[in-house]
Amino acid sequence: MKKAVCLLSGGMDSAVCAAIAKSEGYDVVPLTIQYNQRHIRELDAAKKLVRYFGFREHKIFDIDLKRIGGSALTDEMKVPEGKSLEEIKNGRIPATYVPARNTIFLSIALAYAEVAGADAIFIGVNHMDSSGYPDCRPTYLKKYQEMADLATKRAVEGRPTKIMAPLSEMTKADIVKKGAQLHVPFELAWSCYSGRKKACGVCDSCTLRLAGFSEAGMTDPLEYEK
Amino acid sequence: MKKAVCLLSGGMDSAVCAAIAKSEGYDVVPLTIQYNQRHIRELDAAKKLVRYFGFREHKIFDIDLKRIGGSALTDEMKVPEGKSLEEIKNGRIPATYVPARNTIFLSIALAYAEVAGADAIFIGVNHMDSSGYPDCRPTYLKKYQEMADLATKRAVEGRPTKIMAPLSEMTKADIVKKGAQLHVPFELAWSCYSGRKKACGVCDSCTLRLAGFSEAGMTDPLEYEK
Repeated sequence: MKKAVCLLSGGMDSAVCAAIAKSEGYDVVPLTIQYNQRHIRELDAAKKLVRYFGFREHKIFDIDLKRIGGSALTDEMKVPEGKSLEEIKNGRIPATYVPARNTIFLSIALAYAEVAGADAIFIGVNHMDSSGYPDCRPTYLKKYQEMADLATKRAVEGRPTKIMAPLSEMTKADIVKKGAQLHVPFELAWSCYSGRKKACGVCDSCTLRLAGFSEAGMTDPLEYEK
Repeated sequence: MKKAVCLLSGGMDSAVCAAIAKSEGYDVVPLTIQYNQRHIRELDAAKKLVRYFGFREHKIFDIDLKRIGGSALTDEMKVPEGKSLEEIKNGRIPATYVPARNTIFLSIALAYAEVAGADAIFIGVNHMDSSGYPDCRPTYLKKYQEMADLATKRAVEGRPTKIMAPLSEMTKADIVKKGAQLHVPFELAWSCYSGRKKACGVCDSCTLRLAGFSEAGMTDPLEYEK
């Protein structure tokens, strides 16, 4: 059975991404990377998703990117409400950008894939991410693959690990529809940038998610403050 | 003044690498990554080297690669004495290989370089490393550079960070000579795989180091058990 390490943040996109890997017949090895981000509630969501999908060993890996800094998500800055969407639309890289985040995440996943003997790594970057964040773009992922093909013992011995980004051409609405089709329990997936009891409904992440459901003609089962 | 993040393990190679960066006029920002390796003594060595060279803020970044496993350097296996050199000579990847280590290290350095505003990252991989470890080879480093050029905000905004590996074509003897020329305090640099008071003199790392000094016609000022 082919095996895949799935980066599972606990958010909606990674939940759908993992469901796709499962539906494609992969034995899914979930990997959650805690990088001392503000929205620690995602970890609980990731754990619940792992239980729901019946995945086995959930690898939770800590790396304190706060020690590196340089982002609204790790620094003690206020997460900009609505700002980053505007920035993305205007072709700028938003304040929620975390320096080299996906490069670090994929590298940890690459190491884990080698040890776990995984054929693939699934990462849930989407079309909107691509316009805002350099390390979400298909050109970047293609280069990452070329580098990874030379980086590990597994790869140079002829068993490269494939980087899969099945959401990279999807909008949030597409992701909602795909997730519904695969019975993804959206009420368990946490995307809000705030760590409150209910999702805030106003941060960039909530705004995007709600717009995705709305555009898909569906209702988000998650509870919101407003 | 141009700035460089220098990966400084505390070993001989990274010490010479940092000295080269300094001699080339870089403002050196030392970065030591502690990955829960067996030879924690290197950290003390790195701190002493930072003081000696007069570098400023020493960033020490923890990442527990033991949680990933798959290497003699992080697992509870005995570090093979003399074995890995033989393996390298026979064209095999030795047990001291750590899955995706340099990919992870360079990625953390890339993030730090972006936050610190550094133009370059120095990494002390040498010619012998290249034959044994895939993630030390020039072809790998070239691909890493191409990926990095698409990975960060800094890079896509036209200020790419250059990966520099000035030792990549050097033998241990070359490194000893270069270090001597740059007044590197070899007695402060710790390369031994064991964490004892004196260097063991028999592990692969000690063997390589001693052979390098011998070939260079010099005496290693470090104290050895045998």
